[in-house]
Order: sequence, then C-alpha cells, then structure tokens
Amino acid sequence: MKRTHHNGELRLAHVGEPVTLVGWVSRRRNLGALVFIDLRDRSGIVQITVDEKLAEQVKDVRNEYILQVEGKVVERQDKNPKMATGDIEVYAETITIVNTAETTPMIIADETDALEDTRLKYRYLDLRRAPIQNNLMLRHKVTMLTRNYLSDQGFIEVETPILCKSTPEGARDYLVPSRIFKGKFFALPQSPQIYKQLLMVGGIEKYFQIARCFRDEDLRADRQPEFTQIDIEMSFVDEEQVWTIVEGLMKEIFRNLKQTELPAFPRLTYNECMARYGTDKPDTRFGMEIQNVSGLFQNTEFTVFKNVLEQPKGMVGAIVAAQAADQFSRKEIDKLQEFVKIYGAKALAWLKMANGELSGSVAKVLKPEEKTALIETLELKDNDLIFLIADKAKVAQTALGALRIKLGRQLKLIDESQFNFLWVTNFPMFEYSEEEQRYVAAHHPFTSPNLEDVDKLMSDPENCYSRAYDLVLNGYELLSGSIRIHDQHVQEKVFEAIGMSMEEAREKFGFFIDAFRYGTPPHGGVGIGLERLVMILAGTDNIRDVVAFPKTASASDLMSEAPNTVDEKQLKELHIALEK
Amino acid sequence: MKRTHHNGELRLAHVGEPVTLVGWVSRRRNLGALVFIDLRDRSGIVQITVDEKLAEQVKDVRNEYILQVEGKVVERQDKNPKMATGDIEVYAETITIVNTAETTPMIIADETDALEDTRLKYRYLDLRRAPIQNNLMLRHKVTMLTRNYLSDQGFIEVETPILCKSTPEGARDYLVPSRIFKGKFFALPQSPQIYKQLLMVGGIEKYFQIARCFRDEDLRADRQPEFTQIDIEMSFVDEEQVWTIVEGLMKEIFRNLKQTELPAFPRLTYNECMARYGTDKPDTRFGMEIQNVSGLFQNTEFTVFKNVLEQPKGMVGAIVAAQAADQFSRKEIDKLQEFVKIYGAKALAWLKMANGELSGSVAKVLKPEEKTALIETLELKDNDLIFLIADKAKVAQTALGALRIKLGRQLKLIDESQFNFLWVTNFPMFEYSEEEQRYVAAHHPFTSPNLEDVDKLMSDPENCYSRAYDLVLNGYELLSGSIRIHDQHVQEKVFEAIGMSMEEAREKFGFFIDAFRYGTPPHGGVGIGLERLVMILAGTDNIRDVVAFPKTASASDLMSEAPNTVDEKQLKELHIALEK
Repeated sequence: MKRTHHNGELRLAHVGEPVTLVGWVSRRRNLGALVFIDLRDRSGIVQITVDEKLAEQVKDVRNEYILQVEGKVVERQDKNPKMATGDIEVYAETITIVNTAETTPMIIADETDALEDTRLKYRYLDLRRAPIQNNLMLRHKVTMLTRNYLSDQGFIEVETPILCKSTPEGARDYLVPSRIFKGKFFALPQSPQIYKQLLMVGGIEKYFQIARCFRDEDLRADRQPEFTQIDIEMSFVDEEQVWTIVEGLMKEIFRNLKQTELPAFPRLTYNECMARYGTDKPDTRFGMEIQNVSGLFQNTEFTVFKNVLEQPKGMVGAIVAAQAADQFSRKEIDKLQEFVKIYGAKALAWLKMANGELSGSVAKVLKPEEKTALIETLELKDNDLIFLIADKAKVAQTALGALRIKLGRQLKLIDESQFNFLWVTNFPMFEYSEEEQRYVAAHHPFTSPNLEDVDKLMSDPENCYSRAYDLVLNGYELLSGSIRIHDQHVQEKVFEAIGMSMEEAREKFGFFIDAFRYGTPPHGGVGIGLERLVMILAGTDNIRDVVAFPKTASASDLMSEAPNTVDEKQLKELHIALEK
Repeated sequence: MKRTHHNGELRLAHVGEPVTLVGWVSRRRNLGALVFIDLRDRSGIVQITVDEKLAEQVKDVRNEYILQVEGKVVERQDKNPKMATGDIEVYAETITIVNTAETTPMIIADETDALEDTRLKYRYLDLRRAPIQNNLMLRHKVTMLTRNYLSDQGFIEVETPILCKSTPEGARDYLVPSRIFKGKFFALPQSPQIYKQLLMVGGIEKYFQIARCFRDEDLRADRQPEFTQIDIEMSFVDEEQVWTIVEGLMKEIFRNLKQTELPAFPRLTYNECMARYGTDKPDTRFGMEIQNVSGLFQNTEFTVFKNVLEQPKGMVGAIVAAQAADQFSRKEIDKLQEFVKIYGAKALAWLKMANGELSGSVAKVLKPEEKTALIETLELKDNDLIFLIADKAKVAQTALGALRIKLGRQLKLIDESQFNFLWVTNFPMFEYSEEEQRYVAAHHPFTSPNLEDVDKLMSDPENCYSRAYDLVLNGYELLSGSIRIHDQHVQEKVFEAIGMSMEEAREKFGFFIDAFRYGTPPHGGVGIGLERLVMILAGTDNIRDVVAFPKTASASDLMSEAPNTVDEKQLKELHIALEK
C-alpha cells in the first residue's frame, strides 16, 4: 500500500512535493466549494484540501473514515501555529476511501470528556487519542533504554516462568488448574524473586527481565492485577554496586526522555527518613521538615506534652508552614485536626507568629520561655504557622509527615518540574505483627541483615536492621530491593527469629533452600515498578493511562468482558467445579 | 565485593597484572605441594595455582565452593590450547572462601551424562554449564537484536494482557478463576492475535511484542506449555511490506550471530511446494525434488498406474536418490515400503539404474518405451535409485516428501551449515473438516482471502486461496502470518462460507467484530516462534535447551514441583471446588 510520508512530519520544506498519505479523518469542514479534512495517523494530523473536482468523492466521508490521499504539499495562507503541520496543507489530487466508519461512541481528540468506563469499553478508540499513544511510545522508549543500558552493562535478559508454584507467603496468588495433574494448580508469579535468585545460584551473575507480575489483591486506584517490573539481580556485589547500576539506568532514562542530567542520588536511613519526613517515601522537592522539639519541653507544665514525654518514645514534633499563617482560617485549621486523626494522632496543636508573638491553640498553656525557645529553635518569623503533635514518635512523625505533604500541595511548595530521587536504606529487619504475635520479616525472609546485627537477631530483633533499600522518586516508592542472604547459617537464624524451624522453612520454601546448599554467591537486586516510572515520566497519576489494555479496579476488562463464564466441558477437563 | 577481571578473559597480555577474581571451583588437583584450582565464572574458566603457603586455606575446598582469589597472572609452562585462558594461570596470593558447597547431584561440565530429569530437578546446577549459559546468552542476543531492529523501523513494543478472555476457537486455554466475579474465569492468551489487531484498529500502525503465549495441549517433545513469540503487526501494508520487515530482521540476526549475509528469500506457493516437496515446510538444503511423471504413463498397461491416473487428481510421482542404488539392499527398500504407508500411500515402487537399464519392483510391468521415457525425463544415470508412488496427488506428494527427507538425512545430503529460508504463500483459504462436515478456516477466520477469490468464497471454497504465508527455515515452520480482513463485507462472506451466521460470529467474537465498525486499516503481521529460532541458531533440537526453566512433556516443573496442591481456603476464595 503506497504511502510516501507520515502526516505529522510535513513542513514548509516539503512544499511542492507530491505525497501519498493515509490516515483517519479527524475532522471535516465545508467552506464554500472546498472541503477541508484533517487526516490523522500515528505521527500527527495534516490538513487536506479537497476542491470541487473531488468533492463528490468525499461527500459521504465522515470522522474516522480511512482515506488514502495523493496530492501536493502547498503553503497555507492562514497558518495554524497550534498545529505542528500548521504551515502547510496537502492539496488532494486523488482520494481513495480505504474503509468506512460508523459514528464512534466517543470523540477521538486529545481532550475527551468521555467517562472512563466508556474509554475502557472502547479502548481501541481511546488508543487513537494522541495522549494515550504518546504514553505507550514513552513506555516503549523506557523499556528500550532499559534493555540496552543493562545489556551494555553485561546483564542477560532471562525469561522466567509464568506458570509457577504457589508459595504460601506474600499476597494472594492467581491460580491455574492443571489438566494433567488432577487437583493441582499452578500460580502466576507475584514477582520472579525465587527464579532470579536461582539464576544467581545458576551462575548467570547479571540478570534482568522486564517481567509480568500478578497479584490478586483488592485493587487500589494505582494498582493493576497484572503489572510489569524491571527486575534486576546481580552476584558478587554489595549495595553500592546495585545502586550504581540503578542510578546509571535512571540517569540514562532521564537524560534521553527528560533532557535532564540527574545528580548523584542522596541517601537517608529509614530512621532519618522517619525523623525528618515521617514516611519512608518522602517527597524531598520541598522542605517543611519535621523538627523534634521535645528538648524544649523537658520541664513543661503543659500536661499533654508532659505526659507524652514521660512515656518511652514519646516526642513533641513540629512543622512550620512558613509565611502561611494568613492563608489558614480557624475553620481550616480545625479540619487539619481531623486530618491528623486519620494517622492516629490524638490532637494537633498550632501556633501563629505575629508581631514577634505566638498565638494559637497552645499559646496560653506554654510558658513564655518555652515560646521563646520555640521561636529561636524553629527560627520563626511573622506570618509563620506552626503545627505541633505530641505522641509516640512513630505516630507523631507519621501524622506530621502526612500533614507536611498535604500542606506542601495546598501551598504549592512542590516544583513539579523537579525529579528528586532518594535512596532509603537500613530498613528494620523485622516488624512485630500484633495479629500473629511474633516478629515477621519486614521485606522478605531472604533479605540479609546488616552484618553487625547478625548477633542480635534473636536477642534484640527490634534493633536489627537489614540490607534492604528503596528508591524513592518525588514521594513514590519506585523500587525496593535488598542484598539477599547467601549464608545458610544466617538464613537459619533469621528463620528462628521469626519463629520458624528449618523443617517448617523447608516445607514452605523446599527446593529454594535446597538450591542454596550448592555454592550460592552473594547476591542482591531490585524490582522497579515500570508503570510507576512511566506514570511519573508521563506526568499522570492514573496507571490506566500507561497500560494498553488496562483493567478496572475490580480487575475486569470492560472491552473484552473478561473474566467470563466458560463451558462446563472446560471445567470438567480441569477437574474442578463451581461452588454452588 | 572486589573483582577486577572476569576469569575467561585473561590472556598473555595480562601477564604480570595483579587480579582479583571470583567464581566457582570447577576442579581441584594436588600436584606435590601445589594445588591447582580451575575457577569458573560466567565468562569461562582460569587455572589458579596455590602454593604451600596457602595450601592450608584450601585444604577443605571442593568442587562448587565459591572463592575470591587475589593473585598475579603468570605465563604457563605447560600451555593448554584447549582452554581459552590456557596460556596463563593466576598465582594466588590470598584466597577467601566466599561460600561452601555440598556435593552436587550432577557434574557441572560442558558434557554431562546426567539424566534429563536430574538436570530439570536441579536446573539451577544445569544452568551453570556453559552450553546452557551460551544458549541463554544467544536467546538474549536474538531478542535484543529483534527489539532494536524493529524499534529502528518505527515499531512500538506494546504489552498486551496475560489475563484475557477465553475464546472458543483454537487450542485449549489455560483458565484462571476470578475471585471477584464468582463463577467467571480469565484465560491465558494462546497468542496476542486479537489484541494486536485491536492495536491496529487503535492506530498504533506498527506494533511488536516479544510475547508469552500459552497452550494447554498434549505436549510434544518440541513444545512447551508456555512459549514466546516475536509478534508483529502492521497497518496500511500488503504482503511485500510485511515480508520486507521479516527478511530484514532475519538478515540482521544472522549477520550478527552467524556472520552470514543472507540472500533474498525465495518464494513458493503452497501448491508449488506440495508439488515439488510434498510438504508446506520443505527443507530446501538439498534437491531430490518430486517429479510428476504421470504424463509418461498416459497409455500404460500397468493396471496400478492406470487405475490411479483414471481417478480425478490421481498422479504418479517420482524421486531420484542419485548414486545411491548401491547403498540400499532389498531389505532396506522393503522397510521404506512400510515407511510410506504411515503417510497413507498404498505402495512404493522402485527402480535401480545399472548399465543403462532399469531393474526393480516395476521393471517388468512397464513397457520399454515407458522406461526409456523415465530414463530421459529423470535424466537417470547408473547407480541411481528411483522411487515411484501412484496415488491421489496429495497422498503421493506427502509420502514422497516424507521419504525425500528420510533419504536426504540417511544419505547425508543436507549441508548443516546452510540456512535456507523460504516463503510459502497462497495457502488454501479453507480445509474441509470431515469431522464437522463443513469447511473450516485453514489459518483463522480473520485471514483475508486473495482478492481475486472473494467472489468464489461461497461457490468454490475449495479453490479459494488466502493471503496467509509461512516462513520456513531448513524445514521448520519459523513463523506464520497473514494479511487480515479489514472489510466487514468480506468478513461476513467468510463467516458464511464456514457456515457461521453473523449472529453466531458476534456471539463468539463480539467485541472484536464491533471494533471493526469504526474505521479499521488494512493490516497484517506474523508471529515468529522465538524458541524455534533460537534452537536453529543454537543447533539443538531440544526446546528445553533454550528455556531457562523448562517444563516436562507433561507440563510439570520438576524443580519447583509445580503444579502442586493448594489450600482449601484458596479454592474457597475462588469459588471453585475440586471434582471428587
């Protein structure tokens, strides 16, 4: 099929050239005897001018018809600076209707007011819209850059199975009944974690895969039941070598797609992160850090603060919304009281600075010297607004951290053009599960503890830290990873610390533990959320904008109407029956 | 972790350099006070020499221990030309045992006599063998070359869903019960066919994906339940444009991985293929083509030939095994009689040429002028062996085609270093299904008929040919593809021809047919079997050699023991029960 140019690439330099174009009719207008057709292909839109000689041929042509147009590029009289091809038009000499189209149930344009359900049902039409095509192109570029970068660094992409074994830890598995083995099931992988570690046992040394993962969870807006992970694992490395690869990859992607030379990524330990930002995924594009002002209230007579500070791990934390006091009414501040309660804080104290004096909820109960100390410590200026929470450290930090983000957005403190990466390191090794009344692995039980904490695994699990790390970008967790345990004795101790005997462990992780007996190299890696990375690059907060055929929040496909019912015969072959 | 070089890269040029290496102990030998250790990493093996000062440290070191070695590269006295690093050795200065290893259940060496079941159960050990690592590396290179080539040609890789809708045509689906929608199921895709065509409806124009596909079939030796396809689809193209892309891709792969500049791919129609080779996937690396000698027997008195030639589509076909008469005893020829019966042929006639005369099974029943004509037509020489089959054309061709391959292998006529590609085109549009007593689509019902055959779809389905094509490499079907129907009226006629009403079609293919109403471009594409391509490149006929974690012929994973039983609770959540 003849086609000499793509529609969106025509410019003044093409004037005079004969061209043959194909594409969809994006718009048609009649102007006197002339018909103007906007013809769209993947590259963009160009205006076709049809004179009276051909008018008869296009009289039935409507939006989304497919045309093949032979013609000549001419300079436009009335240039359209909003269109990339707005300096020219194509004067049609012959027009062939390649295919017709019925009226579409949604308008195909950059901006659409179609409901998301309509867009999902007619995804093949939504895909014709430039913003969605651009996102898919962006996603393609990210994966191409990733593969070439990692391949150049000596990594091999290895495909791991989709039909796997169901493992008892982690999120809920999608299951696939076996036809050949009656009563048995495969599981779809939540990640290639076990396989990639086995590839390290197998001497592959540097593995990556852009891998499909599956989680049968109750979905949140930013989750899909199937998603894609840039999965990396390396042997004979420590954290620095993993981080160097990841930083190099991110720099490569942002250099090519955002024309930005990223600086070296800063690092914070988990504890520093919690202390300064109240979260392990801080958005560092603005300040307003949490300040621990407990020290100022050692001798306070304000009973709320006093009681909290007498408790172990009690603290008084503060954040300062600089120059924002005049932007918050009493009513708005009361709403923030409700907001922090979501995060478990019992109350939010506040103060405003005006004429060098503090007023506000706790102004009267604090001693003058406490207020002076606050002004000095927080370096307060007139029109600053101060929020204080007194609670257990974790609660105070978390609530102030959430409030910080809320205020940052509301006060437009976030520079949306910035990309702030941050390594968060030294995560706690264990979390105490109130439900199970035992310590559980914070990351997964194959994560290596910090070497200096190995001896504390049993005696002081609370203060054991791990070699797990996250990479945070603009407040999103972009990846998590760790250096894994490669020493069987350490592995046994970790199992013991979470109350699991080696017998039980073998029953649960069997072949995987066996594999570690035959010479396992030190290894570690990461799993990067591809959709999240592309979302950030595309500037969208809707994961469905970066997935070609996304599913709804209830994991259904409105277009194909999957899942659907199947024949009784199919179920019989799989040795299963529907529950009544 | 420090490592200055990879083991396999050390050469004479490195002599004198201090190096730090890591790797697995492949072999250890004691020679007087010295210990020699072959240290293996992904790049290869290097010999480490340990003198008496360090001997104590390595006294417990056994195969598959992991060591870190600091030392100096020295020239070897007794060079080993079989090893890439055989000119040098590394004189150890410090040795650290990084990890220990138990005795492995199979030997880690290029050649293994381990049973395949053992290799599959301990796949993480089998993966340490260089031949398997080389295959995975080759597979990685093929996919990298493919992605870069297609991307450079303007193709976008788009990920299509794994959780799909079960479609009633084709092979058996793997099913995934839905937790949220009681009694409903997803299916794993047999190919991304429907999604890629929808991407064309969606204006993506040039799509590719290296896509996982799933078929729950009874497995043959060269099949896996999950396999990978290089999936390509293009809009606004005809066959030539699709073939150009595929040829370009193959040339790129063979140029890089086989240092071969492939010539333009020859083409044969399906009918020519059947006539000359008796198969639609001929191995053209040797001749011995089938010759239709029916014309020589128009007036024969040999009743077997006479009866066959009086039937419609009856033919007498011949192949000549040149200079091979002395290699086949009467007994061996009798065995070939049995062989052709597998393919439905009733009998195999044979003749030998000696001293310008024909002898053999039908020598006495043929007239002298028929024999003279045979000698002239087939250009027979002394010591040629001729096989003749008289039967319906399809049977005679198929049986002679199978015999041709058998003889070609036996007589070593195949040049294994050659890569012979062949496009097979103009496949029949329909096949008559004796079982269903109706015509069915030979490819799939969305394959476009040849334009000149559209009017014959109903009146003469037998003689309708399609725009489907295969690419054959050395007798293997490497890919199949087609130009698809984009005209609803043609689609309706095809459904009618296979006895399906539009209502029925809509019920079966619903959303897919709907999509075609809104301006569908002409489009076509291919699906290339990645494993088959890599197998041919790797020179193996075992698909498991090119899959990292393969499954057995009964679709089980001996390593992880998948499929396995799952908790009752998991089944309950999915609203299914095991059949008693």
